[in-house]
Amino acid sequence: MSENLTVKAGRFVSVLPHCRLLNMSVDHAEGQSVIMRLPYSEAIIGNPENGVIAGGSITTLMDTACGTAAFVGLPGNELCPTLDLRVDYFKSAQPGKDLVAKADIIRITNSVVFTRAEVYQEHGDEKDVVATCAGNFMRIGMQINGRPV
Amino acid sequence: MSENLTVKAGRFVSVLPHCRLLNMSVDHAEGQSVIMRLPYSEAIIGNPENGVIAGGSITTLMDTACGTAAFVGLPGNELCPTLDLRVDYFKSAQPGKDLVAKADIIRITNSVVFTRAEVYQEHGDEKDVVATCAGNFMRIGMQINGRPV
Amino acid sequence: MSENLTVKAGRFVSVLPHCRLLNMSVDHAEGQSVIMRLPYSEAIIGNPENGVIAGGSITTLMDTACGTAAFVGLPGNELCPTLDLRVDYFKSAQPGKDLVAKADIIRITNSVVFTRAEVYQEHGDEKDVVATCAGNFMRIGMQINGRPV
Amino acid sequence: MSENLTVKAGRFVSVLPHCRLLNMSVDHAEGQSVIMRLPYSEAIIGNPENGVIAGGSITTLMDTACGTAAFVGLPGNELCPTLDLRVDYFKSAQPGKDLVAKADIIRITNSVVFTRAEVYQEHGDEKDVVATCAGNFMRIGMQINGRPV
Repeated sequence: MSENLTVKAGRFVSVLPHCRLLNMSVDHAEGQSVIMRLPYSEAIIGNPENGVIAGGSITTLMDTACGTAAFVGLPGNELCPTLDLRVDYFKSAQPGKDLVAKADIIRITNSVVFTRAEVYQEHGDEKDVVATCAGNFMRIGMQINGRPV
Repeated sequence: MSENLTVKAGRFVSVLPHCRLLNMSVDHAEGQSVIMRLPYSEAIIGNPENGVIAGGSITTLMDTACGTAAFVGLPGNELCPTLDLRVDYFKSAQPGKDLVAKADIIRITNSVVFTRAEVYQEHGDEKDVVATCAGNFMRIGMQINGRPV
Repeated sequence: MSENLTVKAGRFVSVLPHCRLLNMSVDHAEGQSVIMRLPYSEAIIGNPENGVIAGGSITTLMDTACGTAAFVGLPGNELCPTLDLRVDYFKSAQPGKDLVAKADIIRITNSVVFTRAEVYQEHGDEKDVVATCAGNFMRIGMQINGRPV
Repeated sequence: MSENLTVKAGRFVSVLPHCRLLNMSVDHAEGQSVIMRLPYSEAIIGNPENGVIAGGSITTLMDTACGTAAFVGLPGNELCPTLDLRVDYFKSAQPGKDLVAKADIIRITNSVVFTRAEVYQEHGDEKDVVATCAGNFMRIGMQINGRPV
């Protein structure tokens, strides 16, 4: 079951060009949660002098992780456009290390899916949280080619 | 004077790899405002079936525009890390058209730069606003190689 | 016409007990905008030593102003519950002076009303902005006694 | 130790007039967490026809709980003004029942205290979450009568 959701999440992410450009991938999806990974690379550096990761890369990772959680946590293939997104940055990410995002649905109503995510870096067993995110998605129902079904 | 700020903004953006990947550029910078452009391309498509632009591309554009406004609106080369960012999405962007972001500093205090941005598409003379953004940036003072000066 | 909206706004606010407790009132409503006033009084002081206004009072004023704008800007008596609210504080409000909030609807879609507000104090002709707010409200349709009509 | 923090939190809240008006109180404070209670009363009703609680009362409760957590979680008597606040509303609160807020500091940096809160109602052993909140507070250092010490 949870393996199927990882596949479902991977399929969702694989068609997003900015995910491919940044080499973003799904580690795992289960229930209403998704874990995604953004590998350290030249593409995400914000400051070439010291190799520090661009804040925009972290925002993109969280945005994508929340949207993917909303997609995998709903039955079928319901696509929910983002209504709003809020990001808090705690600290700079360390150069040379992957960024990992864990996103969770925290509530589903008839009209909105509420999600939360955090982005961290792993230092041995420790998670060093770099930023958190809250994303709300509108439920507009199942659609095929932009038309309701 | 305002031409210098456009140059300053362009220099700031040119070192950000995700801007180069998405072909983002500065149209104009003046006073405490910046206008940036994200051309329509395959790189920003979120839905390959209908060519609809990925929400993540719009977030990245606004995030970058707010950060650039904070940079050009302060004297010298003060780099302010993002403290938080909030995005509201009004509607889907139309395929085939550029996205333009106008970002403004709305207040500078000793510790925080407050910015706002909106992203729109141009239909003739009309601006069709797609999303808005509020970004707050921490002032940590002038730095060279990560050390205060 | 605009006088009617001021009456409509006043009626909406008059049944809210926390507005009565704080003596909040509607100065003017017109189109999709509302101006509300929170008089300086002991009830809104946060720091008894220096008379500084409590941040919570400012939040309540903006929350109410945005909700009132959503109510008066829609036809009929459509009540829209708050979906989310974001407040940025620029500075402390000055003791001894009223707080004024101007709230505007910035977009209405089928499912959401997007509003913005700012709170300021008047120093002669000058407006000193203390805080800004973005509030999104769900459209759940016209209701009587909690049932759709 | 934790009893002292409950006393410290109660002292902080007791001088806030809007807390007294709404009869808000501290249930418990410990470490970097605070639990506050807003009793159901006429003062928090938003809709006199059905007794539904005003959204503004919930915002005020969360705003106060986050600020109190920031105060009790820092050593000494450091007062941190609110920088920004974001609230998500999941559902209407049930008439006739208290609202309880649990607020936690999730990170302290040199310049900012990051907090989170949720507001719930208790149905037997179950917590029914009504809204969540993220509040960021500026650290401006220890002050006496508005002057740094």
